[in-house]
Amino acid sequence: MAAPETIDLLVVGAAELATPTGVRPRGGAELGAIQVVARGALAIHAGRILAVGAEPELVQRFKALRVLDARGGTLVPGFVDAHTHPVFAGTREEEFELRTRGQTYLEIAQAGGGILSSVRGVRAATREQLLELLLLRLERFLALGTTTIEAKSGYGLTLEDELKCLEVIAEANRRQVVECVPTFLGAHDVPAEYKGQRAAYVELVCEEMLPRVAERGLARYCDAFTEAHTFDLADTRRLFARARELGLGLRMHADQLTDLGGAELAAELGAASADHLEHVSPRGIQALARAGVVPVLCPVVPLFLRQEREAPARRMIEAGLAPALSTDFNPGSCYLQSMPEALAWGALRYRLSAAECLTAGTLNAACSLGRGHELGTLESGKRADVIVLDHPNHKHLVYELGRNAVRAVIARGRVVVVNGPSERGPRDA
Amino acid sequence: MAAPETIDLLVVGAAELATPTGVRPRGGAELGAIQVVARGALAIHAGRILAVGAEPELVQRFKALRVLDARGGTLVPGFVDAHTHPVFAGTREEEFELRTRGQTYLEIAQAGGGILSSVRGVRAATREQLLELLLLRLERFLALGTTTIEAKSGYGLTLEDELKCLEVIAEANRRQVVECVPTFLGAHDVPAEYKGQRAAYVELVCEEMLPRVAERGLARYCDAFTEAHTFDLADTRRLFARARELGLGLRMHADQLTDLGGAELAAELGAASADHLEHVSPRGIQALARAGVVPVLCPVVPLFLRQEREAPARRMIEAGLAPALSTDFNPGSCYLQSMPEALAWGALRYRLSAAECLTAGTLNAACSLGRGHELGTLESGKRADVIVLDHPNHKHLVYELGRNAVRAVIARGRVVVVNGPSERGPRDA
Repeated sequence: MAAPETIDLLVVGAAELATPTGVRPRGGAELGAIQVVARGALAIHAGRILAVGAEPELVQRFKALRVLDARGGTLVPGFVDAHTHPVFAGTREEEFELRTRGQTYLEIAQAGGGILSSVRGVRAATREQLLELLLLRLERFLALGTTTIEAKSGYGLTLEDELKCLEVIAEANRRQVVECVPTFLGAHDVPAEYKGQRAAYVELVCEEMLPRVAERGLARYCDAFTEAHTFDLADTRRLFARARELGLGLRMHADQLTDLGGAELAAELGAASADHLEHVSPRGIQALARAGVVPVLCPVVPLFLRQEREAPARRMIEAGLAPALSTDFNPGSCYLQSMPEALAWGALRYRLSAAECLTAGTLNAACSLGRGHELGTLESGKRADVIVLDHPNHKHLVYELGRNAVRAVIARGRVVVVNGPSERGPRDA
Repeated sequence: MAAPETIDLLVVGAAELATPTGVRPRGGAELGAIQVVARGALAIHAGRILAVGAEPELVQRFKALRVLDARGGTLVPGFVDAHTHPVFAGTREEEFELRTRGQTYLEIAQAGGGILSSVRGVRAATREQLLELLLLRLERFLALGTTTIEAKSGYGLTLEDELKCLEVIAEANRRQVVECVPTFLGAHDVPAEYKGQRAAYVELVCEEMLPRVAERGLARYCDAFTEAHTFDLADTRRLFARARELGLGLRMHADQLTDLGGAELAAELGAASADHLEHVSPRGIQALARAGVVPVLCPVVPLFLRQEREAPARRMIEAGLAPALSTDFNPGSCYLQSMPEALAWGALRYRLSAAECLTAGTLNAACSLGRGHELGTLESGKRADVIVLDHPNHKHLVYELGRNAVRAVIARGRVVVVNGPSERGPRDA
């Protein structure tokens, strides 16, 4: 028998290891086809997963410098949150109360609240202030088990302020372990100084912002809020043509508040993702399916905004689509950083199984960010982003609400978070 | 100037202190009339609140053995969860998945799942196992800021097993700081061995269980699941007459699944609370208002069960009622221990303001348990159950979802929980 190989980290003591598999988005009947290993263990070395398997086998095969005891918990891949707006200064709890009293999202926006109120906050903030706030939020993401986020700009809306936001995201990537995939969202809204001059603002985004963003390598994707009150299909077509020309991938806020045909356009242009989709038409679903676009669904947003219409997730899955689930973390329409919470509401509102939610919050989300070869599953060769959940099995991930059950987080092969209060004592089983 | 008085604990550094006031339930327009003190501080001694006021004044007046720095957070009273079923063994995530696939609560119950599956679990568990599980759950309640719960039996349904559950609650009260107000719920369901013999089971509850429970002082309240498929109004009337005779207060699962007239009966019998009330009629609301019964509302339950009908909370408030908000923590219809989450969904689904939710989750809940003179507000003389929230103001309590923002918990005057990950760094403001 060969002498045991010495590795950095061995994760043992889990009741279950649950993971999707592969490097491509899983849709249709495949969405819930995860791998579940009872008493599964993980061998980790040099930041990578070296082996996944039954605990006795791995214990025999490897000698580890560090052993992490999962204490009867469940191992899943680190969450990938494919739609967040994490660079802002100032929260918007007042708007939340206005909605409680009956005002709508659009009424608040038209009165100068909404996105434009966050734009005022970001413009007034220094780079250092924005960085400090972003780092705090990344720490919270990590404590909730999220190891990768898509991070949008979009509260600057001038060349200078959009660059400031993207530079802050780049700096955060250098400072901590949560990977931020940067998206330029200059077309988030028309800023106040361009009121009534949308075409001129689109021109500014296309001819000044996009080239500078691309030239400096500050974004991997370009996004647009394609909606009746912001940018129409023609605007989006122009923006996205320019973005593609400059080498950026495409994501789109599509059919969130009205059925504008955003999904069809996202499909036509080969976008990586079409996001929200509460009002997507059957034709839009078919178009997304044919083009292999990942729908990024945000189940808590309509609840937070008190809007009745929810994304037709099951119809999308029946059409073969491979949805991602996301928080849409932002200060206006969803002040939520927790992927477990997003997954649970995906189960509750869309009738997704726990396994389907897990795939949607890891592999599919990673694929929508072009990172499926590297992230989103627990398989040998992938980056070792792993969570230990204080749950006896993966079904608890959506069954239990409102508690942070993330007991430990491994990011890039290192144990970076160990949450306290539930470390001792017996376990629900 | 007098020399400063020496006290146990001073809480300083808060951005805000927010609390309802008084010792009686606050309803109607009074529900949201909380007291908000900017930079409020607290002086605590011998387990009691000694003074509440502006920080400079308290710092000058008192010399403290320990100072807790709230670091820009918000101080609120410890949460009081007025409706929980915390004594069970075995979780029911499989039923959650069955509902995802379209089965209803009643279909699952009629197939031997539901309450009766937890009854099998409790009967098979030893006292020690149940205690260990309850202590773990109480630790989680505390970490989420809940310092008092109402704790029901009701998964035993034999004399012996109901006593076992109530004894476990009594033992938990001796072992840790979360106060458990015990409620006897022998009339939770008709157990399998009495199938088709409901009258005989009611007889058993009235003539054997209730007298023993009362004689041993194991419960302060008696509850009944008054519903079309369990106990009707006549059963409930008989049970509650006996309970009152034996000195127990009354709580009732009323009008949750159908409008059976439970609210009217709760009012007629002078119950302390009528709980759920999704199907309460206008007449039921009027009856509760006239009798001063506290409606205990559980906003997450219909969402968790995927039932459309929600309690008409605003109509109750307009009628002058003083609602409490609760988790209904239990393994079948709401696997949720977090009061912040219950309050947020109260805001989202019932259109309650943050201030209204705070009163409903503290003072009104305490009053429904007969503990309004002692708990539920931050006022001098009350027991020092206090939470430090990682929030710049109380409005964030309902605005932010999915993160445990409880930074520290003071129970009976002692700092018992300090949650880790957000201790450092700047704050959202």
